[in-house]
Amino acid sequence: MTASGRLLVEILSIGDELLMGQTVNTNAAWMGRILEEEGWRVNRCVVVSDEEAAILEALVDAESRADLVLITGGLGPTRDDITKHVLCRHFNTSLQLVPAVEDRIVAWFERRGREILQVNRDQALLPEACTVLDNPLGTASGMWFDRPGGVTVSMPGVPYEMEYIMEHGVIPNMQMRLQRDGRLPKRAHKSLLTMGTGESQLAAKLGAMEDELEAVGVKLAYLPSPGSVRIRLTAEDHAVDALGAAHAAVLECLGQWVVSEDGAPVEKALGDVLRENGWTLAVAESCTGGALGAAMVARPGASVFFLGGIQSYSNTAKVNLLGVKAELLAEHGAVSSAVAEAMAQGARKQLGADYGVAITGIAGPDGGSEAKPVGTVFMACAGPSGVRSVHHRFGRDRKRNLEMSVRGAAQLALEMALNEVGDAKPASGVADSL
Amino acid sequence: MTASGRLLVEILSIGDELLMGQTVNTNAAWMGRILEEEGWRVNRCVVVSDEEAAILEALVDAESRADLVLITGGLGPTRDDITKHVLCRHFNTSLQLVPAVEDRIVAWFERRGREILQVNRDQALLPEACTVLDNPLGTASGMWFDRPGGVTVSMPGVPYEMEYIMEHGVIPNMQMRLQRDGRLPKRAHKSLLTMGTGESQLAAKLGAMEDELEAVGVKLAYLPSPGSVRIRLTAEDHAVDALGAAHAAVLECLGQWVVSEDGAPVEKALGDVLRENGWTLAVAESCTGGALGAAMVARPGASVFFLGGIQSYSNTAKVNLLGVKAELLAEHGAVSSAVAEAMAQGARKQLGADYGVAITGIAGPDGGSEAKPVGTVFMACAGPSGVRSVHHRFGRDRKRNLEMSVRGAAQLALEMALNEVGDAKPASGVADSL
Repeated sequence: MTASGRLLVEILSIGDELLMGQTVNTNAAWMGRILEEEGWRVNRCVVVSDEEAAILEALVDAESRADLVLITGGLGPTRDDITKHVLCRHFNTSLQLVPAVEDRIVAWFERRGREILQVNRDQALLPEACTVLDNPLGTASGMWFDRPGGVTVSMPGVPYEMEYIMEHGVIPNMQMRLQRDGRLPKRAHKSLLTMGTGESQLAAKLGAMEDELEAVGVKLAYLPSPGSVRIRLTAEDHAVDALGAAHAAVLECLGQWVVSEDGAPVEKALGDVLRENGWTLAVAESCTGGALGAAMVARPGASVFFLGGIQSYSNTAKVNLLGVKAELLAEHGAVSSAVAEAMAQGARKQLGADYGVAITGIAGPDGGSEAKPVGTVFMACAGPSGVRSVHHRFGRDRKRNLEMSVRGAAQLALEMALNEVGDAKPASGVADSL
Repeated sequence: MTASGRLLVEILSIGDELLMGQTVNTNAAWMGRILEEEGWRVNRCVVVSDEEAAILEALVDAESRADLVLITGGLGPTRDDITKHVLCRHFNTSLQLVPAVEDRIVAWFERRGREILQVNRDQALLPEACTVLDNPLGTASGMWFDRPGGVTVSMPGVPYEMEYIMEHGVIPNMQMRLQRDGRLPKRAHKSLLTMGTGESQLAAKLGAMEDELEAVGVKLAYLPSPGSVRIRLTAEDHAVDALGAAHAAVLECLGQWVVSEDGAPVEKALGDVLRENGWTLAVAESCTGGALGAAMVARPGASVFFLGGIQSYSNTAKVNLLGVKAELLAEHGAVSSAVAEAMAQGARKQLGADYGVAITGIAGPDGGSEAKPVGTVFMACAGPSGVRSVHHRFGRDRKRNLEMSVRGAAQLALEMALNEVGDAKPASGVADSL
């Protein structure tokens, strides 16, 4: 437990594939988010290999600090999965067959028309000392162990199975326990998202305000990612009441750079503005291949504003499907403000949308030139008040260039839409026209 | 150092944003991959908060085990970044101004036309005891500390800056040191990717072979993700010579389920087959909004085979841009095999491609019905030999449904392309036609 009475959590992820980077540990991030929402504090995350000694050492260490230890991974039916055996040794217990779990596993295989093997049935062998947490999405159950000083839970590493067990088993059981013990944590966050400047400039601008905020118990953090800086305000206990005013003061101070007042990603902020105003969006994507459209539909409810688009990766597609003039391509090249603007206008027209947004650039690692090096990207947005384009020179990394392109295009469209509703923002990137 | 003489590495990531899940720890995965390629062993990854006591405890712990400790994060110019001060305390040293670094920082701001602040200049204050590792991509330098028993390096948490310092500073310096000490590790991996069955079935099929492989020093691991299982073979020292034969034996045994012999993701395998045969690809995406196209262009060189596509999120786009008949939509609904096939044929025709691949489905969380619940997705592929479609019923999670749709569509196209070259594969999903 922390000094402020918050539940202290540690996460122990097991798997060589995580250490070797064959799998990204998205589980830990997901758990961090949901635990934070509960007001619990994640103190540490540890990743260890599929080896008994390493698992035991990390487990003992985590249990010495944390109220709740969450273990993921190593529960599959194959030989490299040893977590269950390590837990039996650690909690001095042995495996027993749980018939209800076996029935569920058999039914799981029957529904899928797959042959069931002994190793699958063996997943119903569970430590006697644990309380089983149901997993209807797979064959490995969650295991809840009460121990002196807290609770340890083991879950499969498959993300949606872990998420189910967290949401339906771990969180509600833990909440009941905290309620019983009269431990109701109080903590809150607010965020805002800025673009167009760096974290040092933001910190300088906030200056003295940061001291005042700390004095009332509100902590600031700067979270930079490519192209944007998220600012997070955190308050605990009594300071929670001061959070609203603190957030408003920071918004006021940084207004010129704020692209989303609730810290939502720029694509979400764009979707919100379009939805609120009944506007529709179409895209035209060259180098990003569809990533902007994918970002726009990543959240539910996109069909209200997103009509679709054209993935005009080839020049033929730009001409045939977007109506970009061949002479324009010949004169300026596919990576140019003229072509980006024609693509945006083409998408707007072809889909019959209020806004058309286009991206064309050189993602790399090849294809650059002296005049247009790798990382050169043009973005354009055509809307009711005309067309505007910007260009950026990102770096040499293809993945990052594609991400930045999506974010930059969404920002340009967001700026134009906000201008249309009268909430003016300064221009991003290097303006090419208008 | 491990028993086999491999360099032992531990990663220490610093940042509340990682613990709270606001940022996914992709740095650790990237480092894991590159260190593994060097034949070094990542033993443990730990994430701790921006607090001196937590950082110090984890650092002392990691240094007690590892030859090389890699720290990321907490080097920004703002107040919540305390790593540099913690390192000074830990290594009993103090900060001094490094003029060459200051010059670089000043130039960095001048190039961008941004005002430089004192906090930015202060990033040239670095621990006296360290060797500075250049970071031309940002303002926080890498710091290399020699210590009894090994090396500790601190790097910024911004991924591309960390990657630069790793590739240009940490790896070459460490290699020189290992060469000097005559410690040349030997280790190798091979992978293959399967789809269409689970890890227990794969393990059962491999059966006795697994014992034989272990006897010659080749270790197997099963790495499941939604829709596929990657199998990784690892060999150390003398066993490296046995790896090729072991990989061939596993391929032979599991042939019916193998979709990529080198373990490449299915989208990469599809791109490779298309490239090798000089075929082109077009996409038509409804629920995925462009994610299949984005997956196809994620790797360099996609312009050889990827022509583009239509993001037909709205029905109007399906009719106007893909030529799907309005009667077909009215009769079968947008989420149907008939419409998926018409979309695939439309994409093939509109883009003039050899293969057209289409996705239409209900990603959720809303929009499902009794007959077509959330997670129902139809995929179709039109190629030189006709059109084929399959449908899947995934789950209730939007993000996962979109991922699985992209993978399923790429698998369908890969199967058709492999059939065309005579390397037949069994059908995936539930076949709807052909």
